[in-house]
Amino acid sequence: MTRRAQPTDDLTKGERTRKKLVDATATLLRKQGYHATGLSEIVAESGAPRGSLYFHFPDGKDELAVAALVQSGEGWRARVDTAVADAKDLGSAIDSIVSLLADDLEASGWENGCPVAAVALESISKPVRKAVVAHYTAWQDGVTDSLVTRFGVPRAIAAQFATVSLAAIEGALLLARVHKSREPLITVGRALQAMAMMVPK
Amino acid sequence: MTRRAQPTDDLTKGERTRKKLVDATATLLRKQGYHATGLSEIVAESGAPRGSLYFHFPDGKDELAVAALVQSGEGWRARVDTAVADAKDLGSAIDSIVSLLADDLEASGWENGCPVAAVALESISKPVRKAVVAHYTAWQDGVTDSLVTRFGVPRAIAAQFATVSLAAIEGALLLARVHKSREPLITVGRALQAMAMMVPK
Repeated sequence: MTRRAQPTDDLTKGERTRKKLVDATATLLRKQGYHATGLSEIVAESGAPRGSLYFHFPDGKDELAVAALVQSGEGWRARVDTAVADAKDLGSAIDSIVSLLADDLEASGWENGCPVAAVALESISKPVRKAVVAHYTAWQDGVTDSLVTRFGVPRAIAAQFATVSLAAIEGALLLARVHKSREPLITVGRALQAMAMMVPK
Repeated sequence: MTRRAQPTDDLTKGERTRKKLVDATATLLRKQGYHATGLSEIVAESGAPRGSLYFHFPDGKDELAVAALVQSGEGWRARVDTAVADAKDLGSAIDSIVSLLADDLEASGWENGCPVAAVALESISKPVRKAVVAHYTAWQDGVTDSLVTRFGVPRAIAAQFATVSLAAIEGALLLARVHKSREPLITVGRALQAMAMMVPK
């Protein structure tokens, strides 16, 4: 399943082609990782003309991978923000996030886990590694800020709760994918909700 | 760093060669995943003669990968069992496990995460996928049993606590590796200890 982070109607033809390549790379990196993903497969998945690849990404696979990881991170932050927009408390925000991830994973036939985790655990070049670090740092900071500003959690506790939530959800996504089951995500969601009830305000 | 799951003194020359190949494969799968690991690299890392590879593993890389994942799982279960053997309660058992993993990851220059996670998130063949599922199932069952028999946790709660612990530690290993820092493991360990205090006996 290809994710689109922005509407494509107002893009030029060249921008649409570039976006097709980035979408296809993001989909493949998420499903199978960096080394399993070849440029031919990216071109085939994207439907873009082969020649457009080096026109838009002269540095090849690494440049494409960086663009795909950045887009995946931004796209998922937007989806999570939308999912928690109406949450009246931290517990229901956690429930919304876990349901969003479990629905997406199940709908993909248990293939769509964390869009960055597979690449994070492989041997990768410095620019790709930098994009991975930036991705997880942005999540850590974004979740911490939300906990402080939306749910009134003191910042020092918010940073720790953000680390525990990210770790537990990341691991649950892996276990859910391995076992083809929503259960690890649901169980972790319940544990995080129990912890949320004890966070001082 | 190559892990040895058993002493090699009592092995025949052929068994030692086989073990070298499995050790090298386990090391490389853990550090960089399945698709980044080539047979030439395995042979070079192992120091075994190239010809021995197809003698011991006629089905090639998949057969080697399965043997390596099984050995990693057994080796780590033995190490964790040793680490928690003297733990007087669940909280100190969690502390011992988290310290063991953080020490190992830091000593490896932040390369040695979960021995199976990288492979679990890639596109892999059915036999390798089966070894991955068996690995995580064995951990889930083993941790649940320990919680029941050693720490008197009711089985239904033990199964949930095992899922949350495995997920959180798996995710923390990924974050610790990405950020080259023990902090995610230490923070997750503290959260699991706080949860352990509330588990009914």
